[in-house]
Amino acid sequence: MMMKLKEYLEHSAGAVDKALNTFLPKEKEEPTTIHKAMRYSVFSGGKRVRPILAVEAARTCCGKPKDAMVAACAIELIHTYSLIHDDLPSMDDDDYRRGKPTCHRVFGEANAILAGDALLTLAFNIIAARMDPKRGAAVARELSEAAGTRGMVGGQAIDLEWQGDDVDTKTLNNIHMLKTAKLFEVSTKLGAVSAGAGRKAAAAMAAFGASVGMAFQMVDDIIDGDGYAKLYGEEKARRDCESLVLEAKAALAVFGRKAQRLKDIADYIEERRK
Amino acid sequence: MMMKLKEYLEHSAGAVDKALNTFLPKEKEEPTTIHKAMRYSVFSGGKRVRPILAVEAARTCCGKPKDAMVAACAIELIHTYSLIHDDLPSMDDDDYRRGKPTCHRVFGEANAILAGDALLTLAFNIIAARMDPKRGAAVARELSEAAGTRGMVGGQAIDLEWQGDDVDTKTLNNIHMLKTAKLFEVSTKLGAVSAGAGRKAAAAMAAFGASVGMAFQMVDDIIDGDGYAKLYGEEKARRDCESLVLEAKAALAVFGRKAQRLKDIADYIEERRK
Repeated sequence: MMMKLKEYLEHSAGAVDKALNTFLPKEKEEPTTIHKAMRYSVFSGGKRVRPILAVEAARTCCGKPKDAMVAACAIELIHTYSLIHDDLPSMDDDDYRRGKPTCHRVFGEANAILAGDALLTLAFNIIAARMDPKRGAAVARELSEAAGTRGMVGGQAIDLEWQGDDVDTKTLNNIHMLKTAKLFEVSTKLGAVSAGAGRKAAAAMAAFGASVGMAFQMVDDIIDGDGYAKLYGEEKARRDCESLVLEAKAALAVFGRKAQRLKDIADYIEERRK
Repeated sequence: MMMKLKEYLEHSAGAVDKALNTFLPKEKEEPTTIHKAMRYSVFSGGKRVRPILAVEAARTCCGKPKDAMVAACAIELIHTYSLIHDDLPSMDDDDYRRGKPTCHRVFGEANAILAGDALLTLAFNIIAARMDPKRGAAVARELSEAAGTRGMVGGQAIDLEWQGDDVDTKTLNNIHMLKTAKLFEVSTKLGAVSAGAGRKAAAAMAAFGASVGMAFQMVDDIIDGDGYAKLYGEEKARRDCESLVLEAKAALAVFGRKAQRLKDIADYIEERRK
Protein backbone atom coordinates (compact mmCIF):
# COMPACT_ATOMS: atom_id res chain seq x y z
CA MET A 1 0.00 0.00 0.00
CA MET A 2 2.63 2.52 1.09
CA MET A 3 4.76 1.82 -1.97
CA LYS A 4 1.82 2.41 -4.26
CA LEU A 5 1.07 5.70 -2.52
CA LYS A 6 4.66 6.87 -2.94
CA GLU A 7 4.53 6.17 -6.66
CA TYR A 8 1.22 7.96 -6.86
CA LEU A 9 2.62 11.02 -5.08
CA GLU A 10 5.60 11.09 -7.42
CA HIS A 11 3.33 10.90 -10.43
CA SER A 12 1.15 13.71 -9.08
CA ALA A 13 4.19 15.88 -8.26
CA GLY A 14 5.37 15.32 -11.83
CA ALA A 15 2.09 16.63 -13.23
CA VAL A 16 2.37 19.72 -10.99
CA ASP A 17 5.97 20.31 -12.14
CA LYS A 18 4.89 20.08 -15.75
CA ALA A 19 2.13 22.66 -15.25
CA LEU A 20 4.44 25.00 -13.29
CA ASN A 21 6.92 24.79 -16.16
CA THR A 22 4.21 25.94 -18.56
CA PHE A 23 3.11 28.84 -16.35
CA LEU A 24 6.59 30.23 -15.55
CA PRO A 25 8.39 32.54 -18.01
CA LYS A 26 11.32 30.88 -19.78
CA GLU A 27 14.84 31.44 -18.41
CA LYS A 28 16.07 32.95 -21.65
CA GLU A 29 13.36 35.62 -21.66
CA GLU A 30 14.54 39.09 -20.56
CA PRO A 31 15.20 40.02 -17.80
CA THR A 32 16.85 36.62 -17.56
CA THR A 33 18.21 36.92 -14.01
CA ILE A 34 14.76 37.23 -12.48
CA HIS A 35 13.33 34.40 -14.51
CA LYS A 36 16.29 32.20 -13.55
CA ALA A 37 15.83 33.11 -9.89
CA MET A 38 12.11 32.29 -10.04
CA ARG A 39 12.74 28.91 -11.64
CA TYR A 40 15.68 28.15 -9.35
CA SER A 41 13.43 28.39 -6.30
CA VAL A 42 10.33 26.78 -7.80
CA PHE A 43 12.32 23.77 -9.04
CA SER A 44 14.51 23.16 -6.01
CA GLY A 45 13.17 19.85 -4.79
CA GLY A 46 9.91 20.88 -3.13
CA LYS A 47 7.61 17.97 -2.30
CA ARG A 48 4.55 19.73 -3.83
CA VAL A 49 2.45 18.70 -0.83
CA ARG A 50 0.01 21.62 -1.13
CA PRO A 51 -0.72 21.33 -4.87
CA ILE A 52 -0.99 17.52 -4.59
CA LEU A 53 -3.59 18.00 -1.85
CA ALA A 54 -5.47 20.52 -4.00
CA VAL A 55 -5.59 18.19 -7.00
CA GLU A 56 -6.56 15.23 -4.82
CA ALA A 57 -9.32 17.28 -3.15
CA ALA A 58 -10.75 18.08 -6.58
CA ARG A 59 -10.69 14.39 -7.52
CA THR A 60 -12.40 13.45 -4.26
CA CYS A 61 -15.16 15.93 -5.17
CA CYS A 62 -15.60 14.09 -8.49
CA GLY A 63 -13.70 16.75 -10.44
CA LYS A 64 -10.76 16.24 -12.78
CA PRO A 65 -7.19 16.94 -11.61
CA LYS A 66 -7.00 19.42 -14.50
CA ASP A 67 -9.78 21.52 -12.93
CA ALA A 68 -7.65 22.26 -9.89
CA MET A 69 -4.23 22.52 -11.56
CA VAL A 70 -4.22 26.32 -11.94
CA ALA A 71 -5.24 26.91 -8.32
CA ALA A 72 -2.77 24.22 -7.20
CA CYS A 73 0.11 25.89 -9.05
CA ALA A 74 -0.89 29.35 -7.80
CA ILE A 75 -0.67 27.98 -4.25
CA GLU A 76 2.78 26.50 -4.91
CA LEU A 77 4.00 29.79 -6.44
CA ILE A 78 2.84 31.64 -3.32
CA HIS A 79 4.43 29.04 -1.06
CA THR A 80 7.71 29.45 -2.97
CA TYR A 81 7.63 33.26 -2.82
CA SER A 82 7.10 33.08 0.95
CA LEU A 83 10.14 30.79 1.36
CA ILE A 84 12.35 33.15 -0.67
CA HIS A 85 11.32 36.19 1.38
CA ASP A 86 11.44 34.33 4.73
CA ASP A 87 15.03 33.22 3.98
CA LEU A 88 16.28 36.80 3.36
CA PRO A 89 19.08 38.21 5.55
CA SER A 90 16.69 40.71 7.17
CA MET A 91 14.22 37.91 7.99
CA ASP A 92 15.39 34.41 9.02
CA ASP A 93 18.78 34.81 7.30
CA ASP A 94 19.04 31.28 5.96
CA ASP A 95 21.88 30.25 3.66
CA TYR A 96 20.49 26.86 2.71
CA ARG A 97 17.09 25.36 1.98
CA ARG A 98 16.61 21.70 1.12
CA GLY A 99 20.40 21.41 1.01
CA LYS A 100 20.79 24.04 -1.71
CA PRO A 101 21.93 27.67 -1.36
CA THR A 102 18.95 29.99 -0.86
CA CYS A 103 17.78 32.28 -3.67
CA HIS A 104 19.50 35.40 -2.30
CA ARG A 105 22.79 33.49 -1.87
CA VAL A 106 22.78 32.65 -5.58
CA PHE A 107 21.17 35.72 -7.16
CA GLY A 108 21.70 38.45 -4.56
CA GLU A 109 19.25 40.01 -2.15
CA ALA A 110 17.60 42.46 -4.57
CA ASN A 111 16.91 39.80 -7.18
CA ALA A 112 15.56 37.44 -4.52
CA ILE A 113 13.10 40.10 -3.33
CA LEU A 114 12.03 40.75 -6.93
CA ALA A 115 11.75 37.03 -7.74
CA GLY A 116 9.44 36.62 -4.74
CA ASP A 117 7.36 39.61 -5.81
CA ALA A 118 7.13 38.21 -9.33
CA LEU A 119 6.01 34.74 -8.13
CA LEU A 120 3.26 36.28 -5.98
CA THR A 121 2.14 38.39 -8.94
CA LEU A 122 2.24 35.40 -11.30
CA ALA A 123 0.05 33.36 -8.94
CA PHE A 124 -2.80 35.83 -9.35
CA ASN A 125 -2.08 36.18 -13.06
CA ILE A 126 -2.59 32.51 -13.86
CA ILE A 127 -5.84 32.44 -11.86
CA ALA A 128 -7.19 35.51 -13.69
CA ALA A 129 -5.98 34.40 -17.11
CA ARG A 130 -6.73 30.67 -16.99
CA MET A 131 -9.73 30.03 -14.75
CA ASP A 132 -13.43 30.48 -15.25
CA PRO A 133 -14.07 34.04 -13.92
CA LYS A 134 -16.51 33.04 -11.18
CA ARG A 135 -14.43 30.19 -9.76
CA GLY A 136 -11.28 32.25 -10.30
CA ALA A 137 -12.70 35.12 -8.24
CA ALA A 138 -13.53 32.73 -5.37
CA VAL A 139 -10.06 31.16 -5.56
CA ALA A 140 -8.24 34.53 -5.74
CA ARG A 141 -10.24 35.92 -2.81
CA GLU A 142 -9.56 32.99 -0.48
CA LEU A 143 -5.96 32.60 -1.54
CA SER A 144 -5.19 36.30 -1.05
CA GLU A 145 -6.74 36.13 2.42
CA ALA A 146 -4.63 33.09 3.35
CA ALA A 147 -1.50 34.82 2.00
CA GLY A 148 -2.05 38.30 3.49
CA THR A 149 -1.76 39.83 6.97
CA ARG A 150 -4.60 37.62 8.26
CA GLY A 151 -2.61 34.61 7.10
CA MET A 152 0.97 33.94 5.98
CA VAL A 153 2.36 37.48 6.07
CA GLY A 154 0.75 38.01 9.49
CA GLY A 155 2.28 34.79 10.80
CA GLN A 156 5.74 35.76 9.58
CA ALA A 157 5.36 39.21 11.19
CA ILE A 158 4.46 37.67 14.57
CA ASP A 159 7.28 35.13 14.17
CA LEU A 160 9.75 38.00 13.64
CA GLU A 161 8.48 39.86 16.71
CA TRP A 162 9.28 36.82 18.85
CA GLN A 163 12.59 35.93 17.27
CA GLY A 164 15.19 35.20 19.94
CA ASP A 165 12.56 35.09 22.69
CA ASP A 166 11.04 31.96 24.17
CA VAL A 167 7.64 31.78 22.59
CA ASP A 168 4.59 30.55 24.57
CA THR A 169 2.28 27.77 23.33
CA LYS A 170 -0.58 30.04 22.35
CA THR A 171 1.63 32.27 20.23
CA LEU A 172 3.41 29.31 18.64
CA ASN A 173 0.09 27.74 17.70
CA ASN A 174 -1.06 31.04 16.24
CA ILE A 175 2.13 31.35 14.16
CA HIS A 176 1.76 27.78 12.84
CA MET A 177 -1.89 28.37 12.09
CA LEU A 178 -1.19 31.56 10.12
CA LYS A 179 2.10 30.59 8.45
CA THR A 180 1.33 26.97 7.56
CA ALA A 181 -2.18 25.72 8.29
CA LYS A 182 -3.98 28.53 6.42
CA LEU A 183 -2.30 27.67 3.12
CA PHE A 184 -3.03 23.95 3.62
CA GLU A 185 -6.61 24.87 4.46
CA VAL A 186 -7.10 26.73 1.20
CA SER A 187 -5.23 24.07 -0.78
CA THR A 188 -7.86 21.42 -0.17
CA LYS A 189 -10.73 23.91 -0.03
CA LEU A 190 -9.82 25.54 -3.34
CA GLY A 191 -9.27 22.14 -4.91
CA ALA A 192 -12.92 21.50 -4.09
CA VAL A 193 -14.03 24.97 -5.25
CA SER A 194 -12.12 24.56 -8.53
CA ALA A 195 -14.00 21.32 -9.15
CA GLY A 196 -17.33 23.10 -8.63
CA ALA A 197 -18.06 21.40 -5.28
CA GLY A 198 -20.76 22.81 -3.01
CA ARG A 199 -20.35 24.70 0.24
CA LYS A 200 -20.57 21.64 2.49
CA ALA A 201 -17.87 19.74 0.60
CA ALA A 202 -15.65 22.83 0.52
CA ALA A 203 -16.03 23.30 4.28
CA ALA A 204 -15.15 19.65 4.95
CA MET A 205 -12.07 19.99 2.75
CA ALA A 206 -11.06 23.18 4.56
CA ALA A 207 -11.28 21.41 7.94
CA PHE A 208 -9.23 18.50 6.62
CA GLY A 209 -6.57 20.82 5.14
CA ALA A 210 -6.22 22.93 8.29
CA SER A 211 -5.66 19.88 10.53
CA VAL A 212 -3.27 18.25 8.09
CA GLY A 213 -1.37 21.56 7.86
CA MET A 214 -0.94 21.74 11.65
CA ALA A 215 0.19 18.09 11.67
CA PHE A 216 2.63 18.77 8.83
CA GLN A 217 4.16 21.68 10.74
CA MET A 218 4.40 19.60 13.91
CA VAL A 219 6.29 16.85 12.07
CA ASP A 220 8.62 19.55 10.72
CA ASP A 221 9.23 20.66 14.29
CA ILE A 222 9.89 17.07 15.40
CA ILE A 223 12.37 16.52 12.56
CA ASP A 224 14.18 19.80 13.34
CA GLY A 225 13.85 19.45 17.15
CA ASP A 226 12.28 22.89 16.99
CA GLY A 227 9.13 24.82 17.98
CA TYR A 228 6.41 22.57 19.31
CA ALA A 229 8.70 19.55 19.81
CA LYS A 230 11.15 21.74 21.75
CA LEU A 231 8.39 23.10 24.00
CA TYR A 232 6.67 19.78 24.75
CA GLY A 233 9.11 17.05 23.87
CA GLU A 234 8.91 14.63 20.94
CA GLU A 235 6.53 12.19 22.61
CA LYS A 236 3.74 14.67 23.20
CA ALA A 237 4.34 16.23 19.78
CA ARG A 238 3.91 12.80 18.14
CA ARG A 239 0.72 12.17 20.14
CA ASP A 240 -0.79 15.56 19.24
CA CYS A 241 0.16 15.04 15.63
CA GLU A 242 -1.69 11.72 15.66
CA SER A 243 -4.81 13.40 17.08
CA LEU A 244 -4.68 16.06 14.38
CA VAL A 245 -4.49 13.47 11.63
CA LEU A 246 -7.41 11.55 13.14
CA GLU A 247 -9.37 14.81 13.28
CA ALA A 248 -8.44 15.54 9.68
CA LYS A 249 -9.61 12.15 8.47
CA ALA A 250 -12.86 12.44 10.43
CA ALA A 251 -13.64 15.65 8.52
CA LEU A 252 -13.72 13.58 5.33
CA ALA A 253 -16.58 11.31 6.48
CA VAL A 254 -18.97 13.09 4.13
CA PHE A 255 -17.03 11.78 1.11
CA GLY A 256 -17.12 8.11 2.12
CA ARG A 257 -14.70 5.82 0.28
CA LYS A 258 -13.83 8.43 -2.33
CA ALA A 259 -11.61 10.11 0.27
CA GLN A 260 -9.35 7.09 0.87
CA ARG A 261 -6.40 8.54 -1.02
CA LEU A 262 -6.56 11.81 0.94
CA LYS A 263 -6.62 9.83 4.18
CA ASP A 264 -3.57 7.87 3.03
CA ILE A 265 -1.77 11.14 2.28
CA ALA A 266 -2.61 12.39 5.78
CA ASP A 267 -1.13 9.20 7.29
CA TYR A 268 1.91 9.59 5.07
CA ILE A 269 2.43 13.17 6.30
CA GLU A 270 2.27 11.95 9.90
CA GLU A 271 4.80 9.21 9.27
CA ARG A 272 7.40 11.08 7.24
CA ARG A 273 10.86 11.41 8.77
CA LYS A 274 12.50 14.04 6.57
CA MET B 1 -9.32 76.87 -15.54
CA MET B 2 -6.15 75.64 -13.89
CA MET B 3 -7.45 76.57 -10.45
CA LYS B 4 -10.63 74.64 -11.04
CA LEU B 5 -8.65 71.61 -12.21
CA LYS B 6 -6.49 71.70 -9.08
CA GLU B 7 -9.58 71.69 -6.88
CA TYR B 8 -11.00 68.86 -8.93
CA LEU B 9 -7.83 66.80 -8.55
CA GLU B 10 -7.85 67.38 -4.79
CA HIS B 11 -11.45 66.28 -4.59
CA SER B 12 -10.74 63.16 -6.63
CA ALA B 13 -7.64 62.32 -4.53
CA GLY B 14 -9.83 62.68 -1.42
CA ALA B 15 -12.29 60.11 -2.76
CA VAL B 16 -9.42 57.71 -3.50
CA ASP B 17 -8.01 58.20 0.03
CA LYS B 18 -11.38 57.45 1.53
CA ALA B 19 -11.73 54.22 -0.45
CA LEU B 20 -8.16 53.15 0.39
CA ASN B 21 -8.93 53.73 4.07
CA THR B 22 -11.88 51.35 3.78
CA PHE B 23 -9.89 48.65 1.99
CA LEU B 24 -6.83 48.67 4.29
CA PRO B 25 -6.84 46.73 7.60
CA LYS B 26 -7.04 49.00 10.66
CA GLU B 27 -3.82 49.89 12.49
CA LYS B 28 -5.02 48.38 15.75
CA GLU B 29 -5.68 44.99 14.17
CA GLU B 30 -3.00 42.35 14.89
CA PRO B 31 -0.24 42.16 13.76
CA THR B 32 -0.28 45.93 14.29
CA THR B 33 3.25 46.69 13.05
CA ILE B 34 2.53 45.44 9.55
CA HIS B 35 -0.78 47.27 9.33
CA LYS B 36 0.89 50.47 10.55
CA ALA B 37 3.67 50.06 8.00
CA MET B 38 1.15 49.52 5.18
CA ARG B 39 -0.83 52.62 6.16
CA TYR B 40 2.30 54.70 6.73
CA SER B 41 3.37 54.19 3.12
CA VAL B 42 -0.07 54.39 1.53
CA PHE B 43 -0.88 57.66 3.33
CA SER B 44 2.42 59.44 2.90
CA GLY B 45 1.45 62.27 0.57
CA GLY B 46 1.17 60.49 -2.77
CA LYS B 47 -0.55 62.53 -5.50
CA ARG B 48 -2.82 59.58 -6.49
CA VAL B 49 -2.12 60.33 -10.18
CA ARG B 50 -2.77 56.74 -11.33
CA PRO B 51 -6.08 56.16 -9.51
CA ILE B 52 -7.30 59.62 -10.50
CA LEU B 53 -6.59 58.74 -14.14
CA ALA B 54 -8.41 55.41 -13.75
CA VAL B 55 -11.50 57.05 -12.27
CA GLU B 56 -11.46 59.81 -14.88
CA ALA B 57 -11.09 57.26 -17.69
CA ALA B 58 -14.20 55.47 -16.40
CA ARG B 59 -16.13 58.75 -16.35
CA THR B 60 -14.98 59.56 -19.88
CA CYS B 61 -16.39 56.18 -20.96
CA CYS B 62 -19.75 57.20 -19.44
CA GLY B 63 -19.21 55.08 -16.33
CA LYS B 64 -19.45 56.17 -12.70
CA PRO B 65 -16.30 56.94 -10.68
CA LYS B 66 -17.51 54.24 -8.28
CA ASP B 67 -17.22 51.59 -11.04
CA ALA B 68 -13.47 52.13 -11.27
CA MET B 69 -12.67 52.77 -7.60
CA VAL B 70 -11.64 49.19 -6.73
CA ALA B 71 -9.33 48.88 -9.74
CA ALA B 72 -8.00 52.40 -9.06
CA CYS B 73 -7.17 51.53 -5.44
CA ALA B 74 -5.62 48.19 -6.43
CA ILE B 75 -3.32 50.11 -8.78
CA GLU B 76 -2.34 52.56 -6.02
CA LEU B 77 -1.65 49.67 -3.59
CA ILE B 78 0.63 48.06 -6.18
CA HIS B 79 2.34 51.38 -6.87
CA THR B 80 2.95 51.81 -3.11
CA TYR B 81 4.31 48.28 -2.67
CA SER B 82 6.75 48.88 -5.53
CA LEU B 83 8.02 52.10 -3.90
CA ILE B 84 8.56 50.33 -0.54
CA HIS B 85 10.54 47.49 -2.14
CA ASP B 86 12.48 49.80 -4.51
CA ASP B 87 13.61 51.93 -1.54
CA LEU B 88 15.07 48.94 0.38
CA PRO B 89 18.79 48.93 1.28
CA SER B 90 19.48 46.07 -1.16
CA MET B 91 17.70 47.95 -3.97
CA ASP B 92 17.96 51.77 -4.34
CA ASP B 93 18.77 52.26 -0.64
CA ASP B 94 16.71 55.42 -0.15
CA ASP B 95 16.28 56.96 3.30
CA TYR B 96 13.62 59.45 2.33
CA ARG B 97 10.62 59.56 0.02
CA ARG B 98 8.45 62.65 -0.37
CA GLY B 99 10.43 64.24 2.47
CA LYS B 100 9.53 61.48 4.95
CA PRO B 101 11.68 58.56 6.16
CA THR B 102 11.13 55.48 3.99
CA CYS B 103 9.14 52.51 5.30
CA HIS B 104 12.21 50.42 6.21
CA ARG B 105 13.77 53.37 8.06
CA VAL B 106 10.72 53.56 10.32
CA PHE B 107 9.66 49.89 10.64
CA GLY B 108 12.84 47.99 9.79
CA GLU B 109 13.76 46.08 6.67
CA ALA B 110 11.85 42.86 7.40
CA ASN B 111 8.59 44.66 8.13
CA ALA B 112 9.00 46.82 5.03
CA ILE B 113 9.39 43.72 2.85
CA LEU B 114 6.31 42.16 4.47
CA ALA B 115 4.28 45.38 4.19
CA GLY B 116 5.05 45.48 0.47
CA ASP B 117 4.10 41.82 0.08
CA ALA B 118 0.85 42.47 1.95
CA LEU B 119 -0.07 45.48 -0.20
CA LEU B 120 0.48 43.48 -3.39
CA THR B 121 -1.66 40.66 -1.98
CA LEU B 122 -4.37 43.08 -0.86
CA ALA B 123 -4.56 44.61 -4.34
CA PHE B 124 -5.66 41.28 -5.81
CA ASN B 125 -7.89 40.60 -2.81
CA ILE B 126 -10.04 43.70 -3.29
CA ILE B 127 -10.43 42.99 -7.00
CA ALA B 128 -11.52 39.39 -6.34
CA ALA B 129 -13.77 40.28 -3.40
CA ARG B 130 -15.38 43.48 -4.63
CA MET B 131 -15.63 43.43 -8.43
CA ASP B 132 -17.97 41.68 -10.80
CA PRO B 133 -16.13 38.37 -11.56
CA LYS B 134 -15.84 38.90 -15.31
CA ARG B 135 -14.55 42.47 -15.13
CA GLY B 136 -12.46 41.57 -12.10
CA ALA B 137 -10.74 38.76 -14.03
CA ALA B 138 -9.90 41.15 -16.88
CA VAL B 139 -8.58 43.74 -14.43
CA ALA B 140 -6.52 41.22 -12.41
CA ARG B 141 -5.04 39.73 -15.57
CA GLU B 142 -3.90 43.05 -17.05
CA LEU B 143 -2.75 44.47 -13.73
CA SER B 144 -0.68 41.39 -12.88
CA GLU B 145 0.95 41.57 -16.31
CA ALA B 146 1.82 45.24 -15.83
CA ALA B 147 3.20 44.50 -12.34
CA GLY B 148 5.19 41.33 -13.15
CA THR B 149 8.45 40.58 -14.93
CA ARG B 150 7.07 41.86 -18.24
CA GLY B 151 6.30 45.16 -16.49
CA MET B 152 7.28 46.82 -13.22
CA VAL B 153 9.36 44.01 -11.66
CA GLY B 154 11.16 43.52 -14.99
CA GLY B 155 11.92 47.26 -15.21
CA GLN B 156 13.33 47.32 -11.69
CA ALA B 157 15.47 44.26 -12.46
CA ILE B 158 16.96 45.91 -15.56
CA ASP B 159 17.40 49.16 -13.62
CA LEU B 160 19.40 47.27 -10.96
CA GLU B 161 21.58 45.60 -13.60
CA TRP B 162 22.62 49.03 -14.88
CA GLN B 163 23.04 50.73 -11.53
CA GLY B 164 26.28 52.68 -11.45
CA ASP B 165 26.78 52.37 -15.20
CA ASP B 166 25.95 55.01 -17.79
CA VAL B 167 22.76 53.76 -19.34
CA ASP B 168 22.07 54.16 -23.08
CA THR B 169 18.90 55.75 -24.46
CA LYS B 170 17.28 52.53 -25.60
CA THR B 171 17.72 50.86 -22.21
CA LEU B 172 16.56 53.96 -20.32
CA ASN B 173 13.42 54.14 -22.45
CA ASN B 174 12.80 50.46 -21.84
CA ILE B 175 13.18 50.91 -18.06
CA HIS B 176 10.77 53.88 -18.06
CA MET B 177 8.31 51.98 -20.20
CA LEU B 178 8.33 48.94 -17.90
CA LYS B 179 8.65 50.69 -14.52
CA THR B 180 6.31 53.63 -15.11
CA ALA B 181 4.41 53.72 -18.39
CA LYS B 182 2.95 50.20 -18.06
CA LEU B 183 1.14 51.04 -14.81
CA PHE B 184 -0.16 54.31 -16.28
CA GLU B 185 -1.28 52.38 -19.36
CA VAL B 186 -3.34 49.95 -17.32
CA SER B 187 -4.66 52.73 -15.07
CA THR B 188 -6.62 54.38 -17.85
CA LYS B 189 -7.31 51.14 -19.69
CA LEU B 190 -8.69 49.40 -16.60
CA GLY B 191 -10.72 52.50 -15.73
CA ALA B 192 -12.41 51.97 -19.09
CA VAL B 193 -12.73 48.19 -18.60
CA SER B 194 -14.23 48.68 -15.12
CA ALA B 195 -16.87 50.94 -16.66
CA GLY B 196 -17.77 48.26 -19.19
CA ALA B 197 -16.29 50.12 -22.17
CA GLY B 198 -15.67 48.27 -25.44
CA ARG B 199 -12.36 47.17 -26.92
CA LYS B 200 -11.83 50.30 -29.02
CA ALA B 201 -12.35 52.67 -26.10
CA ALA B 202 -10.08 50.55 -23.88
CA ALA B 203 -7.33 50.60 -26.53
CA ALA B 204 -7.57 54.39 -26.89
CA MET B 205 -7.35 54.76 -23.10
CA ALA B 206 -4.32 52.44 -23.02
CA ALA B 207 -2.53 54.55 -25.66
CA PHE B 208 -3.33 57.73 -23.73
CA GLY B 209 -2.12 56.27 -20.42
CA ALA B 210 1.15 54.92 -21.85
CA SER B 211 2.10 58.30 -23.39
CA VAL B 212 1.09 60.23 -20.28
CA GLY B 213 3.13 57.79 -18.17
CA MET B 214 6.27 58.38 -20.28
CA ALA B 215 5.68 62.16 -20.04
CA PHE B 216 5.20 61.89 -16.27
CA GLN B 217 8.51 60.02 -15.90
CA MET B 218 10.28 62.57 -18.10
CA VAL B 219 9.03 65.45 -15.95
CA ASP B 220 10.29 63.52 -12.90
CA ASP B 221 13.69 63.27 -14.59
CA ILE B 222 13.67 67.01 -15.38
CA ILE B 223 12.78 67.91 -11.78
CA ASP B 224 15.53 65.62 -10.42
CA GLY B 225 18.06 66.45 -13.18
CA ASP B 226 18.22 62.71 -13.71
CA GLY B 227 17.81 59.98 -16.36
CA TYR B 228 16.47 61.35 -19.63
CA ALA B 229 17.13 65.02 -18.74
CA LYS B 230 20.72 64.14 -17.81
CA LEU B 231 21.29 62.29 -21.09
CA TYR B 232 19.75 64.91 -23.40
CA GLY B 233 19.54 68.15 -21.46
CA GLU B 234 16.43 69.81 -20.10
CA GLU B 235 15.46 71.55 -23.35
CA LYS B 236 15.15 68.40 -25.41
CA ALA B 237 13.48 66.61 -22.50
CA ARG B 238 10.82 69.34 -22.31
CA ARG B 239 10.28 69.19 -26.07
CA ASP B 240 9.91 65.40 -26.09
CA CYS B 241 7.58 65.59 -23.13
CA GLU B 242 5.41 68.05 -25.05
CA SER B 243 5.26 65.66 -28.03
CA LEU B 244 4.23 62.79 -25.75
CA VAL B 245 1.39 64.80 -24.25
CA LEU B 246 0.21 65.85 -27.73
CA GLU B 247 0.29 62.19 -28.75
CA ALA B 248 -1.60 61.23 -25.61
CA LYS B 249 -4.34 63.77 -26.25
CA ALA B 250 -4.63 62.72 -29.89
CA ALA B 251 -5.40 59.17 -28.74
CA LEU B 252 -8.54 60.54 -27.05
CA ALA B 253 -10.08 61.86 -30.30
CA VAL B 254 -12.60 58.99 -30.27
CA PHE B 255 -14.18 60.38 -27.07
CA GLY B 256 -14.74 63.92 -28.39
CA ARG B 257 -15.49 66.57 -25.78
CA LYS B 258 -16.06 64.02 -23.01
CA ALA B 259 -12.28 63.66 -22.76
CA GLN B 260 -11.59 67.33 -21.96
CA ARG B 261 -10.80 66.68 -18.29
CA LEU B 262 -8.32 63.91 -19.14
CA LYS B 263 -6.61 66.27 -21.61
CA ASP B 264 -6.40 68.93 -18.91
CA ILE B 265 -4.81 66.40 -16.55
CA ALA B 266 -2.25 65.51 -19.25
CA ASP B 267 -1.38 69.22 -19.63
CA TYR B 268 -1.16 69.53 -15.86
CA ILE B 269 1.29 66.60 -15.69
CA GLU B 270 3.45 68.26 -18.34
CA GLU B 271 3.51 71.59 -16.49
CA ARG B 272 4.12 70.39 -12.93
CA ARG B 273 7.35 71.54 -11.32
CA LYS B 274 7.54 69.28 -8.25
